Amino acid sequence: MPVTYEHTTLGNGLTIIAELDPEAHSAAGGFFVKTGARDEPAELMGVSHFLEHMMFKGTDRRSADDINREFDEIGAKYNAFTSAEMTVFHGQTLPELFPRCLDLLGDMMRPALRDEDFNQERQVILEEIAMYKDNPFWVLYDELNPRRYPTHPLGHLVLGTNDTITALERDQMKSYFDHRYSADNTVLSLAGNLDFDAAVRQAESLCGGWQDTGAERDTAEPAAPTDSFTIKSERVSRGYTLTMAPAPAYRDPRRHAAGLLAQALGGGGGNSRLHWALIEPGLADECEASYDPHDGGGNWFVFATCDPERLGEVEGILEREIEGLVGSLTEDDLTRLRSKALTAATLAGERPAGRMQRLGILWTYLGDRVSLEEDLAALDAVTIDDTRAVYEAFPFAPRVTGRLVPES
Amino acid sequence: MPVTYEHTTLGNGLTIIAELDPEAHSAAGGFFVKTGARDEPAELMGVSHFLEHMMFKGTDRRSADDINREFDEIGAKYNAFTSAEMTVFHGQTLPELFPRCLDLLGDMMRPALRDEDFNQERQVILEEIAMYKDNPFWVLYDELNPRRYPTHPLGHLVLGTNDTITALERDQMKSYFDHRYSADNTVLSLAGNLDFDAAVRQAESLCGGWQDTGAERDTAEPAAPTDSFTIKSERVSRGYTLTMAPAPAYRDPRRHAAGLLAQALGGGGGNSRLHWALIEPGLADECEASYDPHDGGGNWFVFATCDPERLGEVEGILEREIEGLVGSLTEDDLTRLRSKALTAATLAGERPAGRMQRLGILWTYLGDRVSLEEDLAALDAVTIDDTRAVYEAFPFAPRVTGRLVPES
Repeated sequence: MPVTYEHTTLGNGLTIIAELDPEAHSAAGGFFVKTGARDEPAELMGVSHFLEHMMFKGTDRRSADDINREFDEIGAKYNAFTSAEMTVFHGQTLPELFPRCLDLLGDMMRPALRDEDFNQERQVILEEIAMYKDNPFWVLYDELNPRRYPTHPLGHLVLGTNDTITALERDQMKSYFDHRYSADNTVLSLAGNLDFDAAVRQAESLCGGWQDTGAERDTAEPAAPTDSFTIKSERVSRGYTLTMAPAPAYRDPRRHAAGLLAQALGGGGGNSRLHWALIEPGLADECEASYDPHDGGGNWFVFATCDPERLGEVEGILEREIEGLVGSLTEDDLTRLRSKALTAATLAGERPAGRMQRLGILWTYLGDRVSLEEDLAALDAVTIDDTRAVYEAFPFAPRVTGRLVPES
Repeated sequence: MPVTYEHTTLGNGLTIIAELDPEAHSAAGGFFVKTGARDEPAELMGVSHFLEHMMFKGTDRRSADDINREFDEIGAKYNAFTSAEMTVFHGQTLPELFPRCLDLLGDMMRPALRDEDFNQERQVILEEIAMYKDNPFWVLYDELNPRRYPTHPLGHLVLGTNDTITALERDQMKSYFDHRYSADNTVLSLAGNLDFDAAVRQAESLCGGWQDTGAERDTAEPAAPTDSFTIKSERVSRGYTLTMAPAPAYRDPRRHAAGLLAQALGGGGGNSRLHWALIEPGLADECEASYDPHDGGGNWFVFATCDPERLGEVEGILEREIEGLVGSLTEDDLTRLRSKALTAATLAGERPAGRMQRLGILWTYLGDRVSLEEDLAALDAVTIDDTRAVYEAFPFAPRVTGRLVPES
């Protein structure tokens, strides 16, 4: 199927990228704003995520009700998310309805930010923060992440805290919005069965008036502390352990080797080292290792839950598996990992929505297009020596480890 | 894109169905066994799910390690799940590797069920049961479902209990397997870019020796009790409320009207009645309504979490929205709901994996193929009067309601 790539930049700096497939059954588009929790002043922590909610509250042209209703009228599948590093608004529809979807998304991107909505939505955010406190993983993560980044904004919690959200004022959000949601800090990613030239004209009309503010991100490399702690809680019955340690940044070409290494250690699918060492013998309920790259740094991430009596034993096995990983990795292991990555990438590319996401995320991190073929070629080129080198440079240390256990 | 439908039955009763698409980038297949928690004797509760785990532990031809390794070698995305009513094993790969995927799946379906694996895997299941106890929703659901079905096997918990899993013997599982995993109680669903005739020949060779046991399901209509209870727990900080009430069965043509009604009340996407009444004003953290059809019965399902101090107020609003739903539903509402359903169905159909699942699930419930077009036409034909009629026949009563609140 002939997928073609298009790319242009509007006069105000807004980038538009697309992977077009005239045979697709749908079209997808998303605005990727390069702003998230790490770009917030500490006292405004949570403003990016709160703002994401406010984007659905209406514009000069539309009420909140209109936005929801119109998305439904065109049967769109639409959503938004906020991370430490980006805020994304996306939708997908049948091809003939996509211009209406783009009109809605583009209009939403200039919200009214009405006082009344702001005060009402604050309550929604506070409820969301409260809800996370019943989830053991998030209780542990929210304590650990700020310790992993004690002096760096990557330690910010995406939801903010009760204090920052309660204190936040509408005008502070508006200033943050004006500076960060600029044309030059946003990319519009498109994919599937759509008319690129028509979409560019529509974007010009919807977004051509957006300001170019020169919004930047501080990508200074964060410190790598050593820390550990234990939370005792009456609210849990299992033991939880979570470790973060420095790993390559998104722009680091070693990210491919790092991804395969984490996959070998504790990726999904029942064939990881941790799966065989912990799940198969019934020692842990869940375990997972992953590689989470950021702008200017990255993390290894190792998590397990188990009988709290056996937490020490489980942590010993995690340690042993991490230490033994690189030395025991074989060419066969690598071949299998690459094969899985190839299938996963092909499956993700089967839907315009998957291509749109891939394109938008990569552009936000790299300011460039990486084709699926280039990505797969880079993965294919990873050698055992590459995995050894990335492990030596980032040996799962220094670590910050947190435990959550029942109050006994 | 020319999607074609194929269907055949082997001599032993195994059904093979397929939606072929020679232009797809992948192929997908799954064995759908019509057996789950409701088909278990009460004293063997959890055997279906435990058996699902055991299916990955090896066959006469392969060890557990072989199964995991070979799936990875072909880069397959594969998984399994167990519900009250079916147990499913499925995989997807690039087209040229699909015959190897089918060979693996077919071989897995006749597991060795070795004693040693059985005893080891029992521990894994017990850990999984323990883990769910840290999740407030499951704590509430596991108490509620048996009360919704006090004298009916739909009240069985899919994971079983500590007692049933501890007492279960390998030979009991083997007898259950021999009877329920029969050729005539299983369908092989295929979709995407594959050679149907070759797949049938392969299935004949893999599955042609399976027994035809005449396995049946008791689909007597369950009683509809009224019940309510409150659990107090030190482990939660929010309030949780969950209601189940009778709704149409899967085979009931009113299922389409019921689905739209539940979607209007509390479906995802930010435009439901419950969303506007509870999430928008910040009264609830989460709320959801859904329609869950079964063999010989079905459920409405209404769930919300909120500040425990406001649980009474939230339940009052749930009540008001349920009561006011049918009277206030407009043609515009219906048009929007249909439009969403159309897009969702089209998007799901973009991937062979989505088509394979749809086909397999529908066959398992209906013993027939329903094309996507027929499904959409049935949805399109739903009128306001139909929604009124289904509400009158199934008025969200009698109800079983459970609450989970903090120990104060």
